[in-house]
Amino acid sequence: MELDLVITNGTVATASDTFRADIGIREGRIAAIAENLSGAREIDASGKLVLPGGIEAHCHIAQESATGGMTADDYRSGSISAAFGGNSSFVPFAAQHRGMGVTETLDLYDSRAQGNSVIDYGYHLIVADPTEKVLRDELPQAFARGITSFKVFMTYDLMKIDDGQFLDILSVAKTHGALTMVHAENSGIIRWISDRLVAAGHTQPRYHAISHPAVAEAEAINRAITLARFVDAPLLIVHVSTPEGAGMVAQARLEGAKIFGETCPQYLFLTRQDLDRPGMEGAKFMCSPPVRDTETQEALWRHLQAGTFSVFSSDHAPYRFDESGKLAKGPNASFKQIANGMPGIALRLPLLFSEGVRAGRITLNQFVALGSTNAAKLYGMHPEKGTIAIGSDADIAIWDPEETRSVTIEDQHDNMDYTPFEGRQITGWPVTVLSRGETVMDGGKLLAKPGRGRFIARRPPDFTGYPGTRTPELDPARNFGADIAP
Amino acid sequence: MELDLVITNGTVATASDTFRADIGIREGRIAAIAENLSGAREIDASGKLVLPGGIEAHCHIAQESATGGMTADDYRSGSISAAFGGNSSFVPFAAQHRGMGVTETLDLYDSRAQGNSVIDYGYHLIVADPTEKVLRDELPQAFARGITSFKVFMTYDLMKIDDGQFLDILSVAKTHGALTMVHAENSGIIRWISDRLVAAGHTQPRYHAISHPAVAEAEAINRAITLARFVDAPLLIVHVSTPEGAGMVAQARLEGAKIFGETCPQYLFLTRQDLDRPGMEGAKFMCSPPVRDTETQEALWRHLQAGTFSVFSSDHAPYRFDESGKLAKGPNASFKQIANGMPGIALRLPLLFSEGVRAGRITLNQFVALGSTNAAKLYGMHPEKGTIAIGSDADIAIWDPEETRSVTIEDQHDNMDYTPFEGRQITGWPVTVLSRGETVMDGGKLLAKPGRGRFIARRPPDFTGYPGTRTPELDPARNFGADIAP
Amino acid sequence: MELDLVITNGTVATASDTFRADIGIREGRIAAIAENLSGAREIDASGKLVLPGGIEAHCHIAQESATGGMTADDYRSGSISAAFGGNSSFVPFAAQHRGMGVTETLDLYDSRAQGNSVIDYGYHLIVADPTEKVLRDELPQAFARGITSFKVFMTYDLMKIDDGQFLDILSVAKTHGALTMVHAENSGIIRWISDRLVAAGHTQPRYHAISHPAVAEAEAINRAITLARFVDAPLLIVHVSTPEGAGMVAQARLEGAKIFGETCPQYLFLTRQDLDRPGMEGAKFMCSPPVRDTETQEALWRHLQAGTFSVFSSDHAPYRFDESGKLAKGPNASFKQIANGMPGIALRLPLLFSEGVRAGRITLNQFVALGSTNAAKLYGMHPEKGTIAIGSDADIAIWDPEETRSVTIEDQHDNMDYTPFEGRQITGWPVTVLSRGETVMDGGKLLAKPGRGRFIARRPPDFTGYPGTRTPELDPARNFGADIAP
Amino acid sequence: MELDLVITNGTVATASDTFRADIGIREGRIAAIAENLSGAREIDASGKLVLPGGIEAHCHIAQESATGGMTADDYRSGSISAAFGGNSSFVPFAAQHRGMGVTETLDLYDSRAQGNSVIDYGYHLIVADPTEKVLRDELPQAFARGITSFKVFMTYDLMKIDDGQFLDILSVAKTHGALTMVHAENSGIIRWISDRLVAAGHTQPRYHAISHPAVAEAEAINRAITLARFVDAPLLIVHVSTPEGAGMVAQARLEGAKIFGETCPQYLFLTRQDLDRPGMEGAKFMCSPPVRDTETQEALWRHLQAGTFSVFSSDHAPYRFDESGKLAKGPNASFKQIANGMPGIALRLPLLFSEGVRAGRITLNQFVALGSTNAAKLYGMHPEKGTIAIGSDADIAIWDPEETRSVTIEDQHDNMDYTPFEGRQITGWPVTVLSRGETVMDGGKLLAKPGRGRFIARRPPDFTGYPGTRTPELDPARNFGADIAP
Repeated sequence: MELDLVITNGTVATASDTFRADIGIREGRIAAIAENLSGAREIDASGKLVLPGGIEAHCHIAQESATGGMTADDYRSGSISAAFGGNSSFVPFAAQHRGMGVTETLDLYDSRAQGNSVIDYGYHLIVADPTEKVLRDELPQAFARGITSFKVFMTYDLMKIDDGQFLDILSVAKTHGALTMVHAENSGIIRWISDRLVAAGHTQPRYHAISHPAVAEAEAINRAITLARFVDAPLLIVHVSTPEGAGMVAQARLEGAKIFGETCPQYLFLTRQDLDRPGMEGAKFMCSPPVRDTETQEALWRHLQAGTFSVFSSDHAPYRFDESGKLAKGPNASFKQIANGMPGIALRLPLLFSEGVRAGRITLNQFVALGSTNAAKLYGMHPEKGTIAIGSDADIAIWDPEETRSVTIEDQHDNMDYTPFEGRQITGWPVTVLSRGETVMDGGKLLAKPGRGRFIARRPPDFTGYPGTRTPELDPARNFGADIAP
Repeated sequence: MELDLVITNGTVATASDTFRADIGIREGRIAAIAENLSGAREIDASGKLVLPGGIEAHCHIAQESATGGMTADDYRSGSISAAFGGNSSFVPFAAQHRGMGVTETLDLYDSRAQGNSVIDYGYHLIVADPTEKVLRDELPQAFARGITSFKVFMTYDLMKIDDGQFLDILSVAKTHGALTMVHAENSGIIRWISDRLVAAGHTQPRYHAISHPAVAEAEAINRAITLARFVDAPLLIVHVSTPEGAGMVAQARLEGAKIFGETCPQYLFLTRQDLDRPGMEGAKFMCSPPVRDTETQEALWRHLQAGTFSVFSSDHAPYRFDESGKLAKGPNASFKQIANGMPGIALRLPLLFSEGVRAGRITLNQFVALGSTNAAKLYGMHPEKGTIAIGSDADIAIWDPEETRSVTIEDQHDNMDYTPFEGRQITGWPVTVLSRGETVMDGGKLLAKPGRGRFIARRPPDFTGYPGTRTPELDPARNFGADIAP
Repeated sequence: MELDLVITNGTVATASDTFRADIGIREGRIAAIAENLSGAREIDASGKLVLPGGIEAHCHIAQESATGGMTADDYRSGSISAAFGGNSSFVPFAAQHRGMGVTETLDLYDSRAQGNSVIDYGYHLIVADPTEKVLRDELPQAFARGITSFKVFMTYDLMKIDDGQFLDILSVAKTHGALTMVHAENSGIIRWISDRLVAAGHTQPRYHAISHPAVAEAEAINRAITLARFVDAPLLIVHVSTPEGAGMVAQARLEGAKIFGETCPQYLFLTRQDLDRPGMEGAKFMCSPPVRDTETQEALWRHLQAGTFSVFSSDHAPYRFDESGKLAKGPNASFKQIANGMPGIALRLPLLFSEGVRAGRITLNQFVALGSTNAAKLYGMHPEKGTIAIGSDADIAIWDPEETRSVTIEDQHDNMDYTPFEGRQITGWPVTVLSRGETVMDGGKLLAKPGRGRFIARRPPDFTGYPGTRTPELDPARNFGADIAP
Repeated sequence: MELDLVITNGTVATASDTFRADIGIREGRIAAIAENLSGAREIDASGKLVLPGGIEAHCHIAQESATGGMTADDYRSGSISAAFGGNSSFVPFAAQHRGMGVTETLDLYDSRAQGNSVIDYGYHLIVADPTEKVLRDELPQAFARGITSFKVFMTYDLMKIDDGQFLDILSVAKTHGALTMVHAENSGIIRWISDRLVAAGHTQPRYHAISHPAVAEAEAINRAITLARFVDAPLLIVHVSTPEGAGMVAQARLEGAKIFGETCPQYLFLTRQDLDRPGMEGAKFMCSPPVRDTETQEALWRHLQAGTFSVFSSDHAPYRFDESGKLAKGPNASFKQIANGMPGIALRLPLLFSEGVRAGRITLNQFVALGSTNAAKLYGMHPEKGTIAIGSDADIAIWDPEETRSVTIEDQHDNMDYTPFEGRQITGWPVTVLSRGETVMDGGKLLAKPGRGRFIARRPPDFTGYPGTRTPELDPARNFGADIAP
């Protein structure tokens, strides 16, 4: 068998196993995993780790922010930064706004992505206006187009849906096999406390965290899980930032519900101390839900270890620290007027590797699962994406587990002017990234052309093996009678 | 000491003790509890129980219904029926509707009550439109007027408030020491499932229960408790109908929150079987939250025994089974068009006595606490009301614990044309009711004139001894910083 | 009606109510509660509280200690100290040791008590050797004799029973209606850690607490509750010292089990800081389970407020700080050789009054319930003991709620040479104590003769109104089949 | 590269991935996973699944039973039956009895195993007599010999250890990195109820289940987890048979403890109905803990899906239904005299495949993890055993996922005379089993010689990535002081 490319002498890891092997690639796919392979081209991975390319499954690219303005990164800069961070695919959001149709939204994002991305991509569809037409016609059409995950917001005035609309969307998603994702925070609590803070003149960035207390997340996660279980629909809680929320995700799964969780680097690696920096400096660390404290970090690590979180994502939401982004409303703006979010698409995996694998908190296989394989499975791209297996796309990241570097903004390769992790010492970096066998990044150099990335038409996730017993609540015999099903 | 009236030879019970004693009354108040008293007038209570008069703390009197129309009972018929049920005081609702002021509302209810009631009365104020003026001026004025309990709705389109408004009201109530009460059901779930039921032609009364599933209550109770704990305000969950909800009330108290619960006869004595009767007959058993099943009944009894519920109320909501009430939209109306609620003000205590005390489930002292004393304490009327103690109002109900009768509509003495408990065998009935030493009812005869009942200007409840530690969430050191308090 | 004695102008409190009234006493019982009474003798209680006399339900009097030697207090000194602490009854332990019969044990304690006590008394029977004869014959005989509460130990080599024996005793107790009490700590954990501490030379008193960790109590309470629920027998966990344990008691009650809890002053008012005093000084603060920390104190207060604990007792276990007690094995003895326990029979109620009622944590009525009424109910002495009601024994304590004194050893009136509360400022003290209408203590003077106290032949407790549904585990249909009952 | 053997055209599955590939084997190890391989010998796996060989990690082979007598299977018949069930390794127990040394025990089992097994094997060491010598010398020696897992019993008179001994063993195991396993049932409950059953003449096999109620397991699991967490040692609860127990395992992991769980086919596929068969027939279904009910089965499936259970084992304990086994004490023996346990080593994987994978409850990858990979990881044999990866032993089972057969005793290839699953229809069977590249079983024929199986000297498990934060209880600052560590 002729191989186009062989990666030799590396240590290969999947979500389950770690072993020494060469990887042989032909026509963009993995054709051999074996000892002593040779091919037309060879990459020597001695002393290196050969891992499935990362899948960044939560990032905001070429998207309008809630406070107006666009994210600093488009599909070109965003995909490049992702690649430098060890990713070979990503799934940003296509955001419907009120008054827009879903097809119109997807067409818009297609136009933003095409010709720009250096890696393969898909979209999660944000549903902010679930009209009857959207529910009846457009969501099924989106689904047919390969958009098999929908996201809703329980807070943010311009995006939030009410509990009945949430049920409408869950119900349609379930019918088609799509996964619903939710930003879960209680809108009323945030409004109430923000009003009081602003009225008292407490407008600095640090008050953002106070206005998004842990109970606001815990309440909303409880409600979201209740709604999903009510109609027995799968649901992923994104960016879980509290032990309370993580505990509910875990408990729901034990009780047989298809509830999943995601957490992000900011909740493991930053705290209120960062947000509390003087003046507007704290604005760099504003995100929703906000960063918490060290006890929360410990608890979230435990949930990562125990399997509560299926995916670990960056929630890359790039707003520059200038008038185009964080400072759009000037240097004295209230925290209510400052765009929420922080960048991190290039650091998600290195941070997790350094503080997770190297620090002995998680195994290399858990790292692969959290950074790549689980996202591929949950979002309908496995086994083409997310693993090293015969027949899979040759989406591979080669890591040097010993390389130590300090984080700099230059290294991010995004359109941002700051990184919240500036100066942090990280050991373990991706040195080469392949996408379908093509080298996208190598030795710190971009080798791929924008536009080579392809749209990934995703399938519905396979929920076999995830708990999924119907809740007694909807047992026809108990509540509906034999004559009606939900 | 001259006594105006002596009740001799009875067995007296308070919330704590049971003993043989005579009760001496002077100038409308209890002046002596002793052996061998004599007075100007004597009532022989041999073989009888001498108990504090009941306090009916949840009933709808002379109030507009959510579907239009008025309750069948006004302050005259309502108070008479209450008295026949062993009550010497009651606290109906004064319902603000959107666009109405609070003072206007209270004036309106004063005009409805004055000259009519045969027993003493107060109002809980329903707040449906918490404008800035209401929050700033009118609630404090209501409070000064002796209205120290406010009620809010989380469902019903015309009444419901959002989570932020709920916090506004809890915060004002807390400042003044008032108690907030809440009807807790998730509006979105009810809307979503009702739409599907109606669209499928499932409009009979039995589908009402299906449209108000247990999770809708459980979710809303969790949210309500979260909000109350967030601002450390006391909160009473009214008409708890699920073990899940009751469990949350109990747990919150163990964790140091001032959270209270109420349940009602319908949840202990009726089930879905009753609601499922054919045709419109089921409409007689419609209430919100709906009646559930026998397992729920058992669980609620356990919570009654264990102290989860502080008060036991009728939720008397009288709509006749004719075009003035249940059938206002005709015999083919959808369950969405039928007034919710059922009567029961005269049966609350006999049912609890018969099935609780006589059946060995609760002690006579718990009966007194649940039916009278706790309401007096929680609603700011103790010790004038709710007990047999020196100096307290001579509000006394004499019960024959051996009398057995079947329930009939005639015996209700209300303006209704049905009772959901028709034909039920009950042992233990009030035979004489005194209010401030005056006989209101005796031997099945009304002896009091409408209008003799007085308005009770209530004090704020005393929460000493109820847990009330601030939640960590609002600890200034953790979240607010020293510079702000909620 | 002629009254022998009237207490005038006081503020009377029961477990439910507080009111101004005079109390009239005739032939040792309460005959009148009224305004303006007069009698042959009068006590002016102006500005004072008139409360049911305290019932000390957990104290070790004239009992051999686990490390040899006797308690410093006998029924004379113990009852006198109790009276000075506001108590009019007490219930020490009669301790069976291995090889002794139960009747023999009770006869022995009768001989120790008779002629000595100044207040009425009963015993809880400690069962350390549940032979077949004990289970079949002697426990029923003890029961017939008025001993309706049995206590077992899960730790202490000389006293502990195994889980099967525990079930044997629970089963017999249940059959007769007796209440079982348990000292719940895991013997194996204590042994294991003690061995290591001693081997490492860590023998000072402070290591006692380390050798009795919180998990040892939590584990044992879980096991004890499991066993009691398995046979559906009532059980009281004595001296609960951990939030985990208290939480399990509360949860079991909510689930329908007749599980009760007790806590003690040491767990509310002392901490590890006290035990950690240098040298042998810490030995004064040794008890089992040990004192914990301030967070535990806060949690236990919440459970007191929320009703988890039915009784509040001193666990008075008086060992002098000399060679007759704590120092029996010399000044260098290991913590394993030092008698466990501390005195406090005279301070239980003043501490709870000062830190509970005066500090606003509990109501006066809760104080009465925790210090007297509940013990009377749970231990089968109500309503003769534990309340102020017509016909009840005139066991009354008159308190001056404003008197402030520092604790001194002289004020204890026991046989001890130290008090762990020395120097503590307390506001609110009993000034007069009556037992069956006779003044036992007044103005700091003992007025009663040793031997006037009578043995209280107790009835089985009335568990009506306490939850008590059978656990599903023992449902014959599920586990036993129709042909056998446990 | 020359390959000795190639498995062509199969569908390969690991614990993470499923893909089409050929497998190349050289010198007993996997050398290539690729498309289109060829080798000296080929096995055509078209239409077949190519899986890691199963690892049976809980079975009793050549072991004395608790009621006397030996298991029917020795290392010859046991290993043959295992191979026919798709296993390429197994780990029976080496059981220390009281009075025996550990080294003596291991030598004994070596003599029983050597020359007999057709597949590779190790032992878990049962520790029943933890003398000082055992703890200090012999357990470390066992560990050095490759025995890195110890098992203890909380019940069975001849084997049980007390809580302090349990801590001793956990502590030694932790020091060396060994994993402790526990049979968790409460001995006292079982004794107490058995006595009553036997005394009442209820001696038939069906009463065995009644004598081992669910609470006996739940209590013991709680205690075992408490002890393990107390010393922060890893612990595996074997044969969990209750939702309560499974819930505790899951919860402990979420809280950061290294607690693992195992369940077995009997708890998923049999119920009390089986045990309740008339006469001695029920004895065939006796095991401890006993089989339960269908609700339990559902709950255990959910825990299998959610990841609570790391391993799924047969607990093969073969006692023939004759005088050598179940009927040793005659046909009228009491359930206390009948050997506990049932056979199943050949059916563990087919049952899980048919009812798990084919029925859509778990994925093929979960099947691989539960049946092989996780055991290899937890018991220190990964990656040599338990996966298909380059360099791993060529321990491979080829399955025909479509083959349907009824279970017969003949098919078991063990020394038993019955199987509890007789007649059950199963779809999906292993057709070929390789061990280190040698064909052990093929097409229903044994091809390997007894004695070819090798002893596996196991390493300590790698607990990286499993939660393992120290419990606060043992935080030196809280409990031990800086001067002592546990």
